[in-house]
Amino acid sequence: MISVGIVGGTGYTGVELLRLLAGHPEVRLRVITSRAEAGRRVDELFPGLRGHVDLVFEAPDVEALGACDLVFFATPNGTAMTLAEDLLARGVRLIDLAADFRLRDAALWEQWYGMPHACPGLLEEAVYGLPEVHRERIRTARVVANPGCYPTAVQLGLLPLLEADWIEPEGLIADCKSGISGAGRKASVPLLEAEAAENFKAYAVPGHRHLPEIRQGLEAVAGRPVSLTFVPHLTPMIRGIHATLYARLREPADAATLTERFARRYAGAPFVDVLPPESHPETRTVRGTNQCRIAVHVPQGGRTVVVLSVIDNLVKGAAGQAVQNMNLMFGFPETLGLMQPPLVP
Amino acid sequence: MISVGIVGGTGYTGVELLRLLAGHPEVRLRVITSRAEAGRRVDELFPGLRGHVDLVFEAPDVEALGACDLVFFATPNGTAMTLAEDLLARGVRLIDLAADFRLRDAALWEQWYGMPHACPGLLEEAVYGLPEVHRERIRTARVVANPGCYPTAVQLGLLPLLEADWIEPEGLIADCKSGISGAGRKASVPLLEAEAAENFKAYAVPGHRHLPEIRQGLEAVAGRPVSLTFVPHLTPMIRGIHATLYARLREPADAATLTERFARRYAGAPFVDVLPPESHPETRTVRGTNQCRIAVHVPQGGRTVVVLSVIDNLVKGAAGQAVQNMNLMFGFPETLGLMQPPLVP
Amino acid sequence: MISVGIVGGTGYTGVELLRLLAGHPEVRLRVITSRAEAGRRVDELFPGLRGHVDLVFEAPDVEALGACDLVFFATPNGTAMTLAEDLLARGVRLIDLAADFRLRDAALWEQWYGMPHACPGLLEEAVYGLPEVHRERIRTARVVANPGCYPTAVQLGLLPLLEADWIEPEGLIADCKSGISGAGRKASVPLLEAEAAENFKAYAVPGHRHLPEIRQGLEAVAGRPVSLTFVPHLTPMIRGIHATLYARLREPADAATLTERFARRYAGAPFVDVLPPESHPETRTVRGTNQCRIAVHVPQGGRTVVVLSVIDNLVKGAAGQAVQNMNLMFGFPETLGLMQPPLVP
Amino acid sequence: MISVGIVGGTGYTGVELLRLLAGHPEVRLRVITSRAEAGRRVDELFPGLRGHVDLVFEAPDVEALGACDLVFFATPNGTAMTLAEDLLARGVRLIDLAADFRLRDAALWEQWYGMPHACPGLLEEAVYGLPEVHRERIRTARVVANPGCYPTAVQLGLLPLLEADWIEPEGLIADCKSGISGAGRKASVPLLEAEAAENFKAYAVPGHRHLPEIRQGLEAVAGRPVSLTFVPHLTPMIRGIHATLYARLREPADAATLTERFARRYAGAPFVDVLPPESHPETRTVRGTNQCRIAVHVPQGGRTVVVLSVIDNLVKGAAGQAVQNMNLMFGFPETLGLMQPPLVP
Repeated sequence: MISVGIVGGTGYTGVELLRLLAGHPEVRLRVITSRAEAGRRVDELFPGLRGHVDLVFEAPDVEALGACDLVFFATPNGTAMTLAEDLLARGVRLIDLAADFRLRDAALWEQWYGMPHACPGLLEEAVYGLPEVHRERIRTARVVANPGCYPTAVQLGLLPLLEADWIEPEGLIADCKSGISGAGRKASVPLLEAEAAENFKAYAVPGHRHLPEIRQGLEAVAGRPVSLTFVPHLTPMIRGIHATLYARLREPADAATLTERFARRYAGAPFVDVLPPESHPETRTVRGTNQCRIAVHVPQGGRTVVVLSVIDNLVKGAAGQAVQNMNLMFGFPETLGLMQPPLVP
Repeated sequence: MISVGIVGGTGYTGVELLRLLAGHPEVRLRVITSRAEAGRRVDELFPGLRGHVDLVFEAPDVEALGACDLVFFATPNGTAMTLAEDLLARGVRLIDLAADFRLRDAALWEQWYGMPHACPGLLEEAVYGLPEVHRERIRTARVVANPGCYPTAVQLGLLPLLEADWIEPEGLIADCKSGISGAGRKASVPLLEAEAAENFKAYAVPGHRHLPEIRQGLEAVAGRPVSLTFVPHLTPMIRGIHATLYARLREPADAATLTERFARRYAGAPFVDVLPPESHPETRTVRGTNQCRIAVHVPQGGRTVVVLSVIDNLVKGAAGQAVQNMNLMFGFPETLGLMQPPLVP
Repeated sequence: MISVGIVGGTGYTGVELLRLLAGHPEVRLRVITSRAEAGRRVDELFPGLRGHVDLVFEAPDVEALGACDLVFFATPNGTAMTLAEDLLARGVRLIDLAADFRLRDAALWEQWYGMPHACPGLLEEAVYGLPEVHRERIRTARVVANPGCYPTAVQLGLLPLLEADWIEPEGLIADCKSGISGAGRKASVPLLEAEAAENFKAYAVPGHRHLPEIRQGLEAVAGRPVSLTFVPHLTPMIRGIHATLYARLREPADAATLTERFARRYAGAPFVDVLPPESHPETRTVRGTNQCRIAVHVPQGGRTVVVLSVIDNLVKGAAGQAVQNMNLMFGFPETLGLMQPPLVP
Repeated sequence: MISVGIVGGTGYTGVELLRLLAGHPEVRLRVITSRAEAGRRVDELFPGLRGHVDLVFEAPDVEALGACDLVFFATPNGTAMTLAEDLLARGVRLIDLAADFRLRDAALWEQWYGMPHACPGLLEEAVYGLPEVHRERIRTARVVANPGCYPTAVQLGLLPLLEADWIEPEGLIADCKSGISGAGRKASVPLLEAEAAENFKAYAVPGHRHLPEIRQGLEAVAGRPVSLTFVPHLTPMIRGIHATLYARLREPADAATLTERFARRYAGAPFVDVLPPESHPETRTVRGTNQCRIAVHVPQGGRTVVVLSVIDNLVKGAAGQAVQNMNLMFGFPETLGLMQPPLVP
């Protein structure tokens, strides 16, 4: 049983952490902070948690957080880095669900996030929390950088191909579609139901912050530069990411062979489910779960391989992956508290 | 640990039973039948259940079902009654999620359901599975008639008022709104997304089969005839029922007093959550859960009391309530396997 | 051809006015104001209007507005009343789509809207713009108070019954469901798609500002006090209101007889369509149109009459009705520019 | 004024044709056929058309159709080809909204559509009804093959690049997302709202019938073979297609230059709207309209050009384009009856 704190519990990743941790048998939720909601019961803001979470939001306080074994940051970018060293000094381990520790290169981080980094010295130590790549390092990490939602779906879909050097590392395309909860719980006209329902659009085509994160991950496994075009889209649903990935095969290969390769690669990964060749994974089959489901196609026997990869952006793309990382860090079974079937329909 | 069968596992109540039973610690799912899908893996039809359900649909067979401790019928109306006596004779207990055993009066049943009843003799014995009213009788029942979705939301909202004789039993109004999964998983043009999304309509205003069921339940607790107008509507979402209930108070009373009365009435009911006076329960706060949340209003201090009652039509309105009944029948804790927080957002 | 101005063109009623006026053969749109967007092209904010509206938002200016024949106010409550007298003095006629001139009793207005009224003297002169009741007075009005969305759907559904004295004026119930565009185009967390999609809730049950407006209208035609319980709900779609109305018949009557009565009452009303008895009007059948469709039921031959009334909240419930009023005020055919079929599916 | 017939008026393209033709000043709708609904009033099946269409569905009859100037086929594939020669012999001109005349190569058609072609001799004569390419030939055509929805969005997005030879004709990618009305008005479980809402999926990745149609069109303008990977997806909304198109530039070029090239190419095309460089067109800005809106990106100044192209699948992707073709065929202004602004929100 560990004692856990959450900094910033009022956004969608925060409330999703609450949902998952409320039922986790090895977690005692000790403190949850929100400057704006300090003093208010959590279940007053989120009535769905009545009977599940008996906490009151507190203003962030290093003393209280410092008494936890683990602190999750479900905050905007730039928050975790200001508290990290203080908490580490008190022996607390950290999982940041924002981007503060995702890029290893501080200059690159500052370019994409538009602010100076408060503790660049920690970037080297922080472990990128994609268990399918860094499982062993996560077990002993003091700081885990929980991956972004798009980077999770894209990397899991492309890793087996790059690791095996089956595709050309140039001209990769990641056409991604996200449900609107990925944009966060903030008052904003374009996110209104009257604006976003019955509408589909691309956004940030000139450049999205998840691009350098994806590239860093792909290049690490490829061992060489990778060129990638990443186009995110907003699709009118609440949860789910569908990544449609395109690459050029070095040698002809059929979907069955590639699928087998994917299945072998993810044999030990409890949350990656490789579907039969030429399947079409649906986002709803992972709704509320920590699964990533993947299918491989080689249309018309050509040289273009198409990988379809789906996750729930708030679970495997955020809070669920954070709990998976926590399980690894504290020696719990990797799947503990994360095995509910999806909510279908 | 009990051995359980499901007859008719391809509809929404069937797959929801699978979701709930897959994680139930006292249940071994032994057989699931579907004439149409016999021979097909369950997780092929419902890929979300990959890793959770390792069964193959079978043609219905009394021998196989007869070896279970409990059989759920998640079938169309008129199916359970044809198998009930055979299974009871083999010592199996039954929960029918359809309507075969909901009305005590066979003639009334035949009038609303348009077919002869196959075993009217069982109607007397069958227990109406609304635990908030019949908890003790359910524990020993051989046949439980699981309530309809609308009847659950409406009865839980009106019972405290009728039991205490605080309202006139005439002129009750139940204006109910249901998500579309309540209409079932059947190929039908009016249920297409292109027809039902971005649309709101009433249906069956002249008469809906849940009307006699609601009336029977209300009259039983009121101890007198009750007149009720019931208008169901289809709202463009997947899950959830919102019942807006109107009645005339015998004596003036404020929302706080009535709320307290509701809270006392449901003090021992783990799945009924009475909200503070003048709250507005949202269907999403019960999505995927077995909760019913209720709030009481007396607008402008008048004589009309307004009760708002929300459930997930597939859980407390169907499969969840069935599992709650199973827990009672077999001496498990009433809430076992049913305590997940809702999926919000 | 008249010259028209719009004050406050950035909300949903404003942009809907633009859509309707852009195609109106007798209107030249001369000025559109928005303090926040002054200097920005209208079709930059609303790219759907590219090629249809060639205007730039201007800061509100009495001179420019004073040169118009007609000014629409698509502003928050409390704006039109501050400019009305100035504009009237310049010979401009006004249609206020907000609530400033809807209630005849200034004290009642101030109680519900929480501010002093700037020109109570105009309340007597202003004409309530429900053409099905005040068609002749609208023709010559200088100030038209365009009705609220709920009040339009509710009054059109109840008027024939109250005028003919067929129902008791007490205990009326208006259970109304609105699409989310009714809440306006404002940054607000509860209106986000991630909050409002896949959710249904009542709101403002203790009291909604449309209640006194509805009551005033019903009492005027009934010629006596009317008691009404009004419960608005938010339904997860963009456009549409469905009012489900309940009243007690003084004498038994069947749906066919009542339907005929409705049809006679609305014989001269081009935008009220009375459906065959026991129909279920769908909101999508009026999407984008100025129609109100109504059906009458008397379930099980009882004494409760149920009227179903649907409109598009932004058209007949706002901008379309305003254009209808404009047509009447300037002697154009009542239906001019308003006869497009709905967008179905 | 021309006399028009519609064969197959009960699907979504049929009812959309009715919506557009009902308001067209040069069209008299004379006959509409449906074997299944023969004898039923059109506005009974589609109540939104009450007051707009005063016809009764008839069984298909060559005599009645033969008296029209123009017959639209809004039928399943394989229907128009069985009636075409008979009608042409009577001097009727034809627009087929299905696929019977889209491919010039009968063998290819038979391979993808799985049936023998009934009148391969007409394939040579039939004109592919994409006015932005074949405007002059359409004017005099007897048979117009109205393009598919995906092919319209994809071809309009890629034509300027291929015509100018600015991109490599190999490795093109068309990642397309369609609202569900594109799947038609047919009873089918996967199209139910409870299945398709809150879900995103790819489909037909191994091969979709629109692929050869797109390739034929692109190769015709490129004057050489083109290789294309086409992946369609279903997005949970009713109307709209968003095509995200990827190609490799032969020479470096920026978005502004390419945008200008697109604008010049479509200068005479009233229904193609090229947005400023690096815009993100939204499907709702074309909802209910015949517009195609296009934006061009060259992310990070690389060699991959990304074109975003949106249409309403039922209008520019079907019925609206058919009316545009009709206007051309009969010498009406190309935009007649097609200039309504979109329905936003």
